[in-house]
Amino acid sequence: PANKKLLFLPGDGIGPEVMRQVRRVIDWLDRKRNVTFDVTEGLVGGAAIDAYGVPLKDETLADALAADAVMLGAVGGPKWDNPTDYTKRPEAGLLSLRKELNLFANLRPAVVFDALVDASTLKADVIKGLDILIVRELTGGVYFGEPRGITDIGNGERRGVNTQVYTTSEIRRVARVAFELARKRGNKLHSMEKANVMESGLLWRQEVTKLHQEEFSDVTLEHMYADNGAMQLLKNPKQFDVIVTDNLFGDILSDEAAMMTGSLGMLPSASLGAPDANGQRKALYEPVHGSAPDIAGRDLANPCATLLSFAMCLRYSFNMDEEAKMLEKAVQNVLSGGMRTADIMAPGMARCSTTVMGDSILREL
Amino acid sequence: PANKKLLFLPGDGIGPEVMRQVRRVIDWLDRKRNVTFDVTEGLVGGAAIDAYGVPLKDETLADALAADAVMLGAVGGPKWDNPTDYTKRPEAGLLSLRKELNLFANLRPAVVFDALVDASTLKADVIKGLDILIVRELTGGVYFGEPRGITDIGNGERRGVNTQVYTTSEIRRVARVAFELARKRGNKLHSMEKANVMESGLLWRQEVTKLHQEEFSDVTLEHMYADNGAMQLLKNPKQFDVIVTDNLFGDILSDEAAMMTGSLGMLPSASLGAPDANGQRKALYEPVHGSAPDIAGRDLANPCATLLSFAMCLRYSFNMDEEAKMLEKAVQNVLSGGMRTADIMAPGMARCSTTVMGDSILREL
Ligand SMILES: CC(C)[C@H](C(=O)O)[C@@H](O)C(=O)O
Ligand SMILES: CC(C)[C@H](C(=O)O)[C@@H](O)C(=O)O
Repeated sequence: PANKKLLFLPGDGIGPEVMRQVRRVIDWLDRKRNVTFDVTEGLVGGAAIDAYGVPLKDETLADALAADAVMLGAVGGPKWDNPTDYTKRPEAGLLSLRKELNLFANLRPAVVFDALVDASTLKADVIKGLDILIVRELTGGVYFGEPRGITDIGNGERRGVNTQVYTTSEIRRVARVAFELARKRGNKLHSMEKANVMESGLLWRQEVTKLHQEEFSDVTLEHMYADNGAMQLLKNPKQFDVIVTDNLFGDILSDEAAMMTGSLGMLPSASLGAPDANGQRKALYEPVHGSAPDIAGRDLANPCATLLSFAMCLRYSFNMDEEAKMLEKAVQNVLSGGMRTADIMAPGMARCSTTVMGDSILREL
Repeated sequence: PANKKLLFLPGDGIGPEVMRQVRRVIDWLDRKRNVTFDVTEGLVGGAAIDAYGVPLKDETLADALAADAVMLGAVGGPKWDNPTDYTKRPEAGLLSLRKELNLFANLRPAVVFDALVDASTLKADVIKGLDILIVRELTGGVYFGEPRGITDIGNGERRGVNTQVYTTSEIRRVARVAFELARKRGNKLHSMEKANVMESGLLWRQEVTKLHQEEFSDVTLEHMYADNGAMQLLKNPKQFDVIVTDNLFGDILSDEAAMMTGSLGMLPSASLGAPDANGQRKALYEPVHGSAPDIAGRDLANPCATLLSFAMCLRYSFNMDEEAKMLEKAVQNVLSGGMRTADIMAPGMARCSTTVMGDSILREL
């Protein structure tokens, strides 16, 4: 069969340095496990703006569409903030990728590693053993709805508009992914919106309820207003198994959940499209953390989130569950051994650089 | 001069029982401080739906417009969930009040009481002494934007739409309130939006920046993406003094901040309109917590948030700073004395009912 095709988009800030550690794992797979990847590399975000004047070139998008999976580092940074042209911001590159690859289901695990319980600002007993999966809708809602923009309305006044819109099928397809994942886990799904204030949220609630009755009545379903969700996550996070929510609430709530774990530098994510005739999904994998411009280029960043994203890539895009588990185990063992990058450093542990963390994980492998 | 006019809207669930404690403070003001309030009472939310078929009668709205201030308990409950007519949900009553009284600035303090540090799921050192004020825009954004609704789009598909819209003057007036409050506090303001994804957020950022340069350059201003805000609140809440944000982000972020304090039952809020020719603002005061239908009518609810909301009412609507402080101090003393309603109960403390908590606070007064 043809080699597995990966597109690497390291992006901005710490993106390139954490992605370098994934390269090393790919070399290892080639040498020791006899699995060869064809890796193409491209630019996205600020890096692409600097090189080509746009955050995502058509050629890069074509590469992404042709690849079996995309590995992304991070995009954005102060250098490209407040641009005069709204289409020329780093984030627009990432948003086009999501939209054009139709990656409607964003899987964001919020997991607390036993070795890192103390890194959280939450009390240990509240979060120890936490394992939540947030499924965020990623190609709809206010991120992409039209009309949108800023217009002059006279008298020195301007008006900014965005549109929150969801259709039945957009809601059903992401809810289906969430129900299916819940079945493989704790069999419990919480759906979050503001049905008490927004009609789009009411439609969301109705469609999730309908799908539940039709196909997933074995899964426990609960609806929760998103503001209450933000509270319940803090109050008793372990009440949750899988959470499904829209693009904007998902952005906020998954970041809240991520920070609750105390180890943002450890959290991977997967963005999946619809299965094609062969059951293959387009997919993009990226760490939950951002581009961290303040520490970029200094070999300080934590590569674990990106490595764990690659583990998700092996599992979801290439059916390589064994290798995914090996990589996850390697990361865990290195943590248990006391190795820590700056972001998760704690008293009594050994502080290490991005590269040394990579070395140790490869040694474990 | 005419008596001070108050409209009481106890609403649903625990609303009536916590508002009863405010009545007692009003009696005390009358007897001991020689300040008389004319109190009118009305129905809102589910209670109004049951009595009149609508969540807010025109007469009640007229009473609210005629009053110097409105004290509200809480609205909503499972009994009125999933109504077939979207205008007939309890929340619509509260939303009309906000809109018709033009209460664009919602002040939500997130304060940690020394006596209650341990009630939080966050570590004590992270939140001890926390004192944040969130200023949430309350009459614009996706809560009120048009077009909105659910439409049939054929093939069994429906489409739900809401519109996020902000104008220059809507942004400036709420930002002005926030800047002014920051000046009286720690002189630091964080403004939160998703300018990297939404044009309405970009306009928000630009207008806040402009107002800052024009009139408030002595206040330290920082912009933060709302998802990062959700994380930073958890990571290091004490970095914040005042936060200004839009209606929807404010809903989520203020609930997150409230739950961080661990004592939702303690948190008041004020919703203020624009000052009229005499400097008077329309105003509504309500606890941050909801109607808690599960414990309604059982004399279990914590009345402190509502009493502290009344303290805000005395301060902002009636310039009675001395009495406001007395009431706040009374609440604090009772807490320090070890009295606790169920929601904030802790080992070694004395558990009490709503009424007994009220008794104790009145005794302190
Ligand atoms: C970078 C930004 C556009 C993006 C988003 O808002 O979706 C990020 O916050 C995320 O959550 O992936
Ligand atoms: C009850 C509901 C309409 C309301 C809101 O969403 O604003 C509540 O959550 C609040 O924060 O006051």
